[in-house]
Amino acid sequence: MRLLLVNPNTSRAMTARMARVAEAVAPPDVTLAAVTAERGFPYISTAAEALVAGVGVLEMLARAEGRADAAIIAAFGDPGLRAARSLGAMPVVGVAEAALLTASMLGDRIGVVAFSRAMTPWYAESVRAAGLEPRFAGFRTPAIAPSTVERAQEELFEPLRACIRDAVEIDGADVVVLGGAPLAGLAERCRDQAPAPLVDPIAAATLQAATLARLRGAGRSGGTPRRSPPKETTGLDPCLARQFAGRPPGVVD
Amino acid sequence: MRLLLVNPNTSRAMTARMARVAEAVAPPDVTLAAVTAERGFPYISTAAEALVAGVGVLEMLARAEGRADAAIIAAFGDPGLRAARSLGAMPVVGVAEAALLTASMLGDRIGVVAFSRAMTPWYAESVRAAGLEPRFAGFRTPAIAPSTVERAQEELFEPLRACIRDAVEIDGADVVVLGGAPLAGLAERCRDQAPAPLVDPIAAATLQAATLARLRGAGRSGGTPRRSPPKETTGLDPCLARQFAGRPPGVVD
Amino acid sequence: MRLLLVNPNTSRAMTARMARVAEAVAPPDVTLAAVTAERGFPYISTAAEALVAGVGVLEMLARAEGRADAAIIAAFGDPGLRAARSLGAMPVVGVAEAALLTASMLGDRIGVVAFSRAMTPWYAESVRAAGLEPRFAGFRTPAIAPSTVERAQEELFEPLRACIRDAVEIDGADVVVLGGAPLAGLAERCRDQAPAPLVDPIAAATLQAATLARLRGAGRSGGTPRRSPPKETTGLDPCLARQFAGRPPGVVD
Amino acid sequence: MRLLLVNPNTSRAMTARMARVAEAVAPPDVTLAAVTAERGFPYISTAAEALVAGVGVLEMLARAEGRADAAIIAAFGDPGLRAARSLGAMPVVGVAEAALLTASMLGDRIGVVAFSRAMTPWYAESVRAAGLEPRFAGFRTPAIAPSTVERAQEELFEPLRACIRDAVEIDGADVVVLGGAPLAGLAERCRDQAPAPLVDPIAAATLQAATLARLRGAGRSGGTPRRSPPKETTGLDPCLARQFAGRPPGVVD
Amino acid sequence: MRLLLVNPNTSRAMTARMARVAEAVAPPDVTLAAVTAERGFPYISTAAEALVAGVGVLEMLARAEGRADAAIIAAFGDPGLRAARSLGAMPVVGVAEAALLTASMLGDRIGVVAFSRAMTPWYAESVRAAGLEPRFAGFRTPAIAPSTVERAQEELFEPLRACIRDAVEIDGADVVVLGGAPLAGLAERCRDQAPAPLVDPIAAATLQAATLARLRGAGRSGGTPRRSPPKETTGLDPCLARQFAGRPPGVVD
Amino acid sequence: MRLLLVNPNTSRAMTARMARVAEAVAPPDVTLAAVTAERGFPYISTAAEALVAGVGVLEMLARAEGRADAAIIAAFGDPGLRAARSLGAMPVVGVAEAALLTASMLGDRIGVVAFSRAMTPWYAESVRAAGLEPRFAGFRTPAIAPSTVERAQEELFEPLRACIRDAVEIDGADVVVLGGAPLAGLAERCRDQAPAPLVDPIAAATLQAATLARLRGAGRSGGTPRRSPPKETTGLDPCLARQFAGRPPGVVD
Repeated sequence: MRLLLVNPNTSRAMTARMARVAEAVAPPDVTLAAVTAERGFPYISTAAEALVAGVGVLEMLARAEGRADAAIIAAFGDPGLRAARSLGAMPVVGVAEAALLTASMLGDRIGVVAFSRAMTPWYAESVRAAGLEPRFAGFRTPAIAPSTVERAQEELFEPLRACIRDAVEIDGADVVVLGGAPLAGLAERCRDQAPAPLVDPIAAATLQAATLARLRGAGRSGGTPRRSPPKETTGLDPCLARQFAGRPPGVVD
Repeated sequence: MRLLLVNPNTSRAMTARMARVAEAVAPPDVTLAAVTAERGFPYISTAAEALVAGVGVLEMLARAEGRADAAIIAAFGDPGLRAARSLGAMPVVGVAEAALLTASMLGDRIGVVAFSRAMTPWYAESVRAAGLEPRFAGFRTPAIAPSTVERAQEELFEPLRACIRDAVEIDGADVVVLGGAPLAGLAERCRDQAPAPLVDPIAAATLQAATLARLRGAGRSGGTPRRSPPKETTGLDPCLARQFAGRPPGVVD
Repeated sequence: MRLLLVNPNTSRAMTARMARVAEAVAPPDVTLAAVTAERGFPYISTAAEALVAGVGVLEMLARAEGRADAAIIAAFGDPGLRAARSLGAMPVVGVAEAALLTASMLGDRIGVVAFSRAMTPWYAESVRAAGLEPRFAGFRTPAIAPSTVERAQEELFEPLRACIRDAVEIDGADVVVLGGAPLAGLAERCRDQAPAPLVDPIAAATLQAATLARLRGAGRSGGTPRRSPPKETTGLDPCLARQFAGRPPGVVD
Repeated sequence: MRLLLVNPNTSRAMTARMARVAEAVAPPDVTLAAVTAERGFPYISTAAEALVAGVGVLEMLARAEGRADAAIIAAFGDPGLRAARSLGAMPVVGVAEAALLTASMLGDRIGVVAFSRAMTPWYAESVRAAGLEPRFAGFRTPAIAPSTVERAQEELFEPLRACIRDAVEIDGADVVVLGGAPLAGLAERCRDQAPAPLVDPIAAATLQAATLARLRGAGRSGGTPRRSPPKETTGLDPCLARQFAGRPPGVVD
Repeated sequence: MRLLLVNPNTSRAMTARMARVAEAVAPPDVTLAAVTAERGFPYISTAAEALVAGVGVLEMLARAEGRADAAIIAAFGDPGLRAARSLGAMPVVGVAEAALLTASMLGDRIGVVAFSRAMTPWYAESVRAAGLEPRFAGFRTPAIAPSTVERAQEELFEPLRACIRDAVEIDGADVVVLGGAPLAGLAERCRDQAPAPLVDPIAAATLQAATLARLRGAGRSGGTPRRSPPKETTGLDPCLARQFAGRPPGVVD
Repeated sequence: MRLLLVNPNTSRAMTARMARVAEAVAPPDVTLAAVTAERGFPYISTAAEALVAGVGVLEMLARAEGRADAAIIAAFGDPGLRAARSLGAMPVVGVAEAALLTASMLGDRIGVVAFSRAMTPWYAESVRAAGLEPRFAGFRTPAIAPSTVERAQEELFEPLRACIRDAVEIDGADVVVLGGAPLAGLAERCRDQAPAPLVDPIAAATLQAATLARLRGAGRSGGTPRRSPPKETTGLDPCLARQFAGRPPGVVD
C-alpha cells in the first residue's frame, strides 16, 4: 500500500521529521512517499495562509493521482482537504481531522495542546468542523514562544508537558491531541508520564489513511465517488486542470 | 495484534457472519476472537434493549481484559461503548461510531441505509453522538420487512440497492453507511454498481480497532487512561466488580 | 395516588432520607413506597455506574408494575429513565430531569450546586439532555470533600451555602438546583437566606410524578403509550423479561 | 392553594372553557380564579399580537399580586411569561411551556397538533424556547379552517383526531400536545382511541402551577427571587408601575 | 430619503444625542426625524422593560406610517423590532441587530463593550437572535458604575477604552461593538487608539436603515410584505389598532 | 467613494451585468470599478472551485489595495471572503453574506431561490456561516436547466417566479434571496408581483460595501484591524506576497 504525505508548508526539514513519525507507525505493508510545497509559507498559521496553501495541496495531489492509494495532508487545519476529497479518486485525510476523530474513539472529552496561542482560533475550526465542540475540553499552550518553529518541541518540552497535565487535571480531558506539525513525535517522548492517552496527528493520520486505503482495497468501501460535471478552466496548474476537466491523470496535454 | 469482537446479541449465527467480514478486512498481523452474549436479545432494536445489553458487554469485556489489544462492540447503537471506555485498559470501538467517523473521512454528506425503519430513531442517536448531524443526509430503509433478521440481506437485496441509489441521488449523500449487523458484508456485494463509497460498519470497526491498538503499541497514544476512584460493589458479575474495584484482571477472588 | 420511589443505589439510609423529603412535600392524597437496589453501588457517580444501575432500575420498576401510579428514579443522572419510559405503563420521572425542568419554570438562568466536582461531567449530560444548555449558569461545588457521602450535607453546610450565593451573585443564576441525593433536604434548611429560589430534586420529582399520575387519572393525558414489538429474551430478570415480551405483569411464569 | 388563570385574549367564553378544564384537573385543595383581558385581541395568533397582549398580562398579574399562590398565562405562546417571572413574587407558568415540559416527561419525541397552520411559526418558538427542538416530531394541523375559533374543536373533531394519529404513526411522536386554547378539553374526549399520551396545555399548566406553589409553600423552593433595581416610570398602569418601582402591592397610590 | 429614529426610552436628552450621531453619519440625501417615548422608562435595562417599551415602539411607528422611508429603534435590545416588521410597511432596523450584523462584516470574532454588567444578559439575547453566538468573543464592562446613565461615557472614558483593549487583546475580538445608547458617539472619540474596528450601533443602524430604504426605492427589494389577516381589537392605541385591522394609515377614525 | 467589484469567475459578460446592477443601486457619491478573474472558471459551482477562485480573489484585492474604499466579492459562496478580511486594509463584503444579512433585516424567515439545484449544498454553507440556519426557510430551484448560465434568467423566468411564490406560500419565507450571479437584476423584474420582499445579492452587497466604507470614512468604525505577524513567502503573486509580508501596497519590488 502506497501512502503519500503532502506537506503544505515549504519547509523540507519539517517534511522529513513528519515522514519519520509516519514511517514509525505505519503497518509493515505500507510504503510512504512525501512531497513538500514549492510555493507558499514556511509554516501556515492563519486561515488566509491555509487558503493559499490549499490550492498548492490540490496541485500536489493532482500530480500524484494514480501513484498512491491514499494521501495525508500534513498541516494542522487540513488545508484543501474538503476540496481534495471532491476532486480526486484516492482517499485523503487531514492531520487535524484524523487526530480529532481518532481521539474521539479514545476518550470522552478531548483536549488540544499546541505550541502557540496564535493558532488556536484556526484549530478551533477543525474541532467545529469535526462536530466535536460538545466534547472539546479546550486548548492549552505554553506562555512563551520558541526561537523557531522547528525548535518548538525541544525548547518548550517542559512547558508542553505541563500543558498536557493541565489539560487532563484542570480541563478534564480524557485524551489529548498534540496539535501542529512542530509537535510531531512529542507523543512518544511524553507517553510514560502522561496522565491520559496522547494523540500524535501525523501518526493518527497515517493509520487513518491506511484504513481508508485498506477498506477500498478490500472492496469494503467501494463505489465511485460522486463528482461534479467536468469543467474547462483557464490558467490553472495543468494536472489540476485535468482533474476539473474530468480527464484521467497521466501525460499532461 | 489480537482483536476481540463482542456480539451484544445472543445470535451465534450473526457472530459468525460478522467475524467473517472482520477477518476478510483485517491486516495480516491481526488475530480475531469473537464472543456472543449469553443473556439478552437475539437482536437489539431499541434503546431499552441496548441498556440491558450494554451491561452484558461490560461483563464480556471485563472477562477478556488482558487477552486482547482492542475490542469491537458489534451491534449498531454501540451498547455500553462509553462505559466500557471508562472502565477497562484496552481501546474499544463501536460499529456505529466507527462507521460514521470513517464515512466522515470519505465524503461530505453521509447517508445511512438500514433494513428496518424501526431502528432509525436509535441510529439517529449515534449520528448525534458522533457530532455528525450537520452532515447527515438522512436514512433510507426498504418499505418491506424480511421474514427474519438473518435473511434481511438476501431477501431485500434489490430494495437495499435502491435505497443506496436514493441516498446518493435524492438525498445527496457522498458516502453511505450500511447500518446494522444484518447488513454486514453487503458493501462488498454492492460496490461495483454503487454510485458512492459504501461503508460496512464491521469492516470499519475492525480497522479502527486495529488503528487504536497500533497507535498504543507504537507508543504514539501513550498515557494511562483516567479512571474513577475504585469502588466496592454488591452482586455484580465478578470480573466487572474487579474493574469497578480497580483490581487487576486475573483469577477472580 | 401511589408513588414509588426507586433508589438505584444500595444505601438504605439514603432511601430513608429521600423518602422523608418526598413525604414532606407530597400532596395529602399521595401514598409513598420506596425500594432500594439490592445490587450495584452504594453511591453512583459515573456514567458507567449509571449504566449498570439502570438495569437494576428496570428490574425494580418491572416488579412494581401495576402497584403504583407513577415512579421516581431517585439518583441524579436518572439511570434507566428513558428505557423505563419505553417499557412500562406507568409514568416515570427522574430526579435530575424533574429538578431541571421545574427550575426552568422558576427562573431564566439555572445554576447547579453539587457536593463533589467529580460528578459534574455526568450532571452536565442531564442539563444537555433536558435541552437547557443555553440557560445553564454553571456548576458550583465545595473545594473540600466530606468524610462520607452521607455526611456531605452536614459537614459542608457553610461551603454549600457559599456555593449557592456564588451561583447567584457571580454566575447570575435565577434559580439553583441542589444536585445529588446527599443534598436532599438542604433546600429547606437554606431557604431563608438564599438569594434565589432553590430546587430540591427529590421534592421536585415527587410533585412531577404526582402531576403525571394526576393528568393520566383525570384522563387528560390518555392514550396508550407506543411500545416496541414483544421480544423473547434469554437470562433476564423474570419480571423484566415479561415486559420485553409484552406480557401483563402478575405471577411470574 | 389559590391559582389565578389569566386569559390574555378578550374572549370571556374562552376563559370560561379553560377554567372548566383547569378545575376538572386541579387537586382538591386548589381554588381557581380567572380573569380575562379587557384590551387586545379576541384571539392571539402572531408574535406581534403576543407582544401587545404580554403587557396586558403584566398588568393583570400586577393587579393580582398577593391574592394568588401561582398564576397561569392561558394562551399558547405564553405572552409576557418571562417578563412576569422577573417582576412579581408568585410563580407563573405558561400553557405552552408547561405543556411541552410535561410532555417531555411522558415520552421521547413530542408532536404538536394545532387547529390552524397559521400559528405554527409562533408555536415553533415555544418549542425552541423550551430547548426541545431535538425532540420535536413536528406539527400537524387540519387542512380546513373552522367557522370560528370557538367552534374549532367541534367542527374539526375528526380531522384533529386524524392529526393525532399521523403525529404518532407517521412522525413518530411518543406524546402529543394539543396546542392552543380552542383545543382545551380535547385530550379528554380523544384519549380512548389515542395511540399515544395526549397533553392538554391547560391541564398541564394548572398542575404545574400547583406544583410550583406547593414547592414554595413546603419551603422546598425558598429564596427571594432576584429582582432588578427599582425604577420610576411614566404613564404605566399603576399596579405595574408599583412593581417596576419595587413597592409592595396594595392600595394604588 | 426620510429616516425616523424612535427612542423607546423617555429621555429626550438621549434622543438628541443619538440624533446627532445619526445625522453625522447619514448620507447627504437623508433627512432624519426623531421621536421620544412618552410613556415607560428613562432607560430600559431588562427584558421586562423591553416588553413594555416594545408596545410603545409599535405605537410610535404606527403613528409615523407613511411619513418615513425606514425607521430605527434606538435602544439596545431592539424592543418591538420583530413585531414592528410584521405590522408596518416601512423597513425597520434595531440598533443591536444592525450593530452586530455590521460588525460581522468587519471581522471574524465580535466583542461587545457595554457600560454596565447589568445589561449583559439582555444583550446576550441580541447576539443569539442574530445567530452570532459562534463568533461572539464576550462582553467587557467597567467595574464601576457612572453617577447617571447620561454621564456614563464621560465618567468611564478610560475604563471603557481599557475594555476595548481587553476585548481585542485578551478575548481575541476582531471588531468591537460599543453597546447601549449611552455610548453613542464613543466610537468616534476612541478610534485613533483602538486596536480594532469599532461599531457605533446608532451609526450602523442609521446606515442600515438607509440601505433598506434605498434597496426598496431602487426596486431591488420589491414585493409586498406578508401580513397576517386583519383583526379587530379592543382598547388599543388608535393608530396601532388601524395597523392590526389592516386599514391604511391616515386620519384616525 | 470608490467601490471595487471583483468577479471571481472568468466571464466578462457576467462582470458587466453585475456592474450594471451595482451602479443602478449605488448612492450618487459612489464610483464603481470592476475586475474579472483571469484564471479559473467561467462559473464557480463547487467548494473546490471556490477554493481555487478564492486565491485569485486575494490576488485581485491585493492589486487594488489603496485604490478603493471597499470591495465586493461578486460570486455566491463568497470565495476568499474571510481570508481577504484578515489581510487587507479595506472593508470587503461577499454577495452571499451581504444578501443573507440584509434579508435578515427585512423579514423573519428567509428563503433562497437559485437557478440550479447543484449549487444548493454550497449555498447552504453560506446560510450556516451567517448564523441564519434557524431562520432558513429552504431552497427553491427550477426543475429544468438553462442552455447556458448566462441565459438562466431569461429562459427560466416563469419557473423562477414560481419558485419565489412557492418559497413564500409553501415554505413560509418572509423574504427571498435570489442567489447566484446569473440572477443579478431579476429582483427588479419580479418585484411587482412578488408576494414578499426580494433581495438581489449584488444590490445588497453594493449597499453594504458603501455602508462599511461610510462608517470608516465618518470615523465611526475606526481602529486598526488586527493583523497576523508579517511572513515571508515563496512563489506567490507579488502583490499578495507584499500583503503577507506586511509591506505597504505600491510598486512591486
